[in-house]
Amino acid sequence: MSELILNAFIMNSPGHLSPGLWTHPDDISVDFGTIGFWVRLAELLERGLFDGLFIADAYGHYDVFEGSPGPAFAHAVQIPRNDPLLLVSAMAHATRHLGFGITLSTSYEPPFALARRLSTLDHLTNGRIGWNVVTSSSDSAARNFGLDRQLTHEERYEIADEYLELCYKLWEASWEEDAVVADRARGLYADPARIHPVDHAGRHFRVQGPHLVAPSPQRTPLLFQAGASSVGRRFAARNAECVFVGAPSKTVLAGSVRKLRQAFADAGRDPASIAIIAEHTVITAPTSAEARDKHAEYRRHASREGALVLMSGWTGVDFSRFAPDDVFEHVESEAIRTAVEAMSSADPSRKWTAGEIADWCGIGGLSPVSVGSPSEVADELASWAADTGVDGFNLSYAVLDSGFRDFIDLVVPELQNRGLYKTGYREGTFRQKLFGRGDRLEAPHPAAVVRDDFASARNLRATRLRP
Amino acid sequence: MSELILNAFIMNSPGHLSPGLWTHPDDISVDFGTIGFWVRLAELLERGLFDGLFIADAYGHYDVFEGSPGPAFAHAVQIPRNDPLLLVSAMAHATRHLGFGITLSTSYEPPFALARRLSTLDHLTNGRIGWNVVTSSSDSAARNFGLDRQLTHEERYEIADEYLELCYKLWEASWEEDAVVADRARGLYADPARIHPVDHAGRHFRVQGPHLVAPSPQRTPLLFQAGASSVGRRFAARNAECVFVGAPSKTVLAGSVRKLRQAFADAGRDPASIAIIAEHTVITAPTSAEARDKHAEYRRHASREGALVLMSGWTGVDFSRFAPDDVFEHVESEAIRTAVEAMSSADPSRKWTAGEIADWCGIGGLSPVSVGSPSEVADELASWAADTGVDGFNLSYAVLDSGFRDFIDLVVPELQNRGLYKTGYREGTFRQKLFGRGDRLEAPHPAAVVRDDFASARNLRATRLRP
Repeated sequence: MSELILNAFIMNSPGHLSPGLWTHPDDISVDFGTIGFWVRLAELLERGLFDGLFIADAYGHYDVFEGSPGPAFAHAVQIPRNDPLLLVSAMAHATRHLGFGITLSTSYEPPFALARRLSTLDHLTNGRIGWNVVTSSSDSAARNFGLDRQLTHEERYEIADEYLELCYKLWEASWEEDAVVADRARGLYADPARIHPVDHAGRHFRVQGPHLVAPSPQRTPLLFQAGASSVGRRFAARNAECVFVGAPSKTVLAGSVRKLRQAFADAGRDPASIAIIAEHTVITAPTSAEARDKHAEYRRHASREGALVLMSGWTGVDFSRFAPDDVFEHVESEAIRTAVEAMSSADPSRKWTAGEIADWCGIGGLSPVSVGSPSEVADELASWAADTGVDGFNLSYAVLDSGFRDFIDLVVPELQNRGLYKTGYREGTFRQKLFGRGDRLEAPHPAAVVRDDFASARNLRATRLRP
Repeated sequence: MSELILNAFIMNSPGHLSPGLWTHPDDISVDFGTIGFWVRLAELLERGLFDGLFIADAYGHYDVFEGSPGPAFAHAVQIPRNDPLLLVSAMAHATRHLGFGITLSTSYEPPFALARRLSTLDHLTNGRIGWNVVTSSSDSAARNFGLDRQLTHEERYEIADEYLELCYKLWEASWEEDAVVADRARGLYADPARIHPVDHAGRHFRVQGPHLVAPSPQRTPLLFQAGASSVGRRFAARNAECVFVGAPSKTVLAGSVRKLRQAFADAGRDPASIAIIAEHTVITAPTSAEARDKHAEYRRHASREGALVLMSGWTGVDFSRFAPDDVFEHVESEAIRTAVEAMSSADPSRKWTAGEIADWCGIGGLSPVSVGSPSEVADELASWAADTGVDGFNLSYAVLDSGFRDFIDLVVPELQNRGLYKTGYREGTFRQKLFGRGDRLEAPHPAAVVRDDFASARNLRATRLRP
């Protein structure tokens, strides 16, 4: 097995996937609004040779539980939620290698401005920026941007397709590779003949250009995606370089991985060339018993209501309708049935109560939680990777920042001893570090196709101009 | 005279108001894409006790000269131009007091997202963020956001009015002052009863809310504006706390200051309560002769064509139509006539050639340039402030970063000796530091009115609910 990819998975919020844990005396989540919090986290992760810091984001709030946003605010369930992009420059200045995977939606903000933001950060980070492309999926977000409800899944992905195509034009085709000359003697900064408008006129967007930013180290940022539906999978297969997956059981996860690699093959891309990264939570301590004690103690700080806010939001079913010991005999929601089946894979006949479901997703949401000594956790991660075919993990935490600190101090050396984890960073951009390839996307990726098409069109025009 | 306000005036670009000076051997502008450049600049400015770093921005490019964007790219005339907001967290982490005035337009990006960005930065900077509100003013920008040409001046300001009103609702009225409880023992992070949707449904925007970000130190960022038209002045008089002005002559500048203070009085606000800050460029050296030599040497690096790119963009007249020694006898453009009259205030009968105009705005654009020893520059700044009524200066540079370094090493001590400049920072937010007042906007500012209206409406509802 090759070395595992490891990202830290977090949100710019006092709570992400372990509601209530902000109340733990060791937890520092409530400081999330300060820069020092993020700089120290980035330094810690770079000490642990993490590939990236992956920041989830959304523009809405959870409001299915009790039909109200109130419980989410009360338990800090992913709210308040500050902008993630603005954290990057401080963290990048404090680190040299750590990558930053930032979630941004294609549904509500103009592509010209978004493309400029990512190009700016690709410069500032020396090519360490990644974009987790999402389409947003809540009516509460839509209502913050002039709509009554969100567009359909299909519409959102159709917009996302055009959005990315337009971004590729700005990033890959607007400035030629050698457009910036910066020749002090000649007084020539950039060669206008090598800078081009993009003249995009599509169904959803019209942008003239040129791009305002000169070519950055990666041009197109490293592209993450997490589409689980068939539409989302096709979108990922066309565009993504890293795909983020999550499932509470190996069987379900292995199925997702198979479908994803097949979708990549169907799209004409090498299925081995993508990095599939699974959500996972680890609680570790020097010994197995200490880790189990720690887990039990964390559970006492978990918020059952907060967990049901998440579960209600994810499934669309208001769990406040059930008493804690209500058994899910006849599960009417497809989403809950899927979740419950996945949680029950060890024992498919098991019946779950509402309270047990809340307890399950009280730490780490629906992702698997590995509790144990460093060697037990390393066994677990190795077996999850081997049995499902994932290339690495987005590690969530129960308590900040000890969740990451314990992992780095205890589990990282164990993984390294087994040859399952790097002992130093590669040089180069986020893309180069992760894949050992060049820092430009290559055909058949659509970013490369856009680049080549523009170059041919220019050559054609240039040829025609000759007498 | 009271202490002068001083901001550094810059753009996230290799060129701002002195085209061609990036070619000077001492100039470091070409490093503008790196974080280290900005962190070192922020540290330098804080050493010089600057009040703020003021970053101009725009979404278009200059294309009037020769009817083409080419010359702007060739001479780095404000292009490439990277996103300014993303620089802030790195600079804020390296400083404790320096404020950041960032330019953002109300014309093209959704207010819900913009309000979240500024709230996030107000948290990360501990209340040191300011917003320079602009409406964008070029067709090239409009064509990057789906339009054929920009909206009219009046339409843009009407949109800006609603935009700000909506931002005030999100910033001032969505979360009550004590909404965040963060009580670990009770497991209550925020009190849902004190968090409110904004339910804005206006002519241009519909936003439900609540705001995603908890109250930040200033809530509403310190508000800058630079409207010079009568519509812009009325907008500034309603909303701005600092107004940015620029004129090449004292007479013209004094007139602008009078009109602005009158507009504030007309809007029911204390005309003495605003800070009026004028664009100014300084070239200094230990002696007068050395400063003049330095100026002459800088002039040799100035780009005449670059200066005409700016002048053509500002006036809408393509200066490539004129030969360098064409005299402006009968100036057909109102904008050129105004500029030329202002430049000629010392000698109203003076005739200008196109080449002389290019030379004039080759360093510092249309702003006055003070060249001299520290004591001569201090004399100049003091007399500009006394004769025009401005409260301070947005200092532009010819060469980076020696323009600011020379000023800080030589002129700052001279100003301090005269009691014209502070000798240390005040504690508190950008607003508190600048005005010595509280960190919240007060009536009759519309942000305070929005806050009070929402509070009354809530109390009314609460009263009605009682039996």
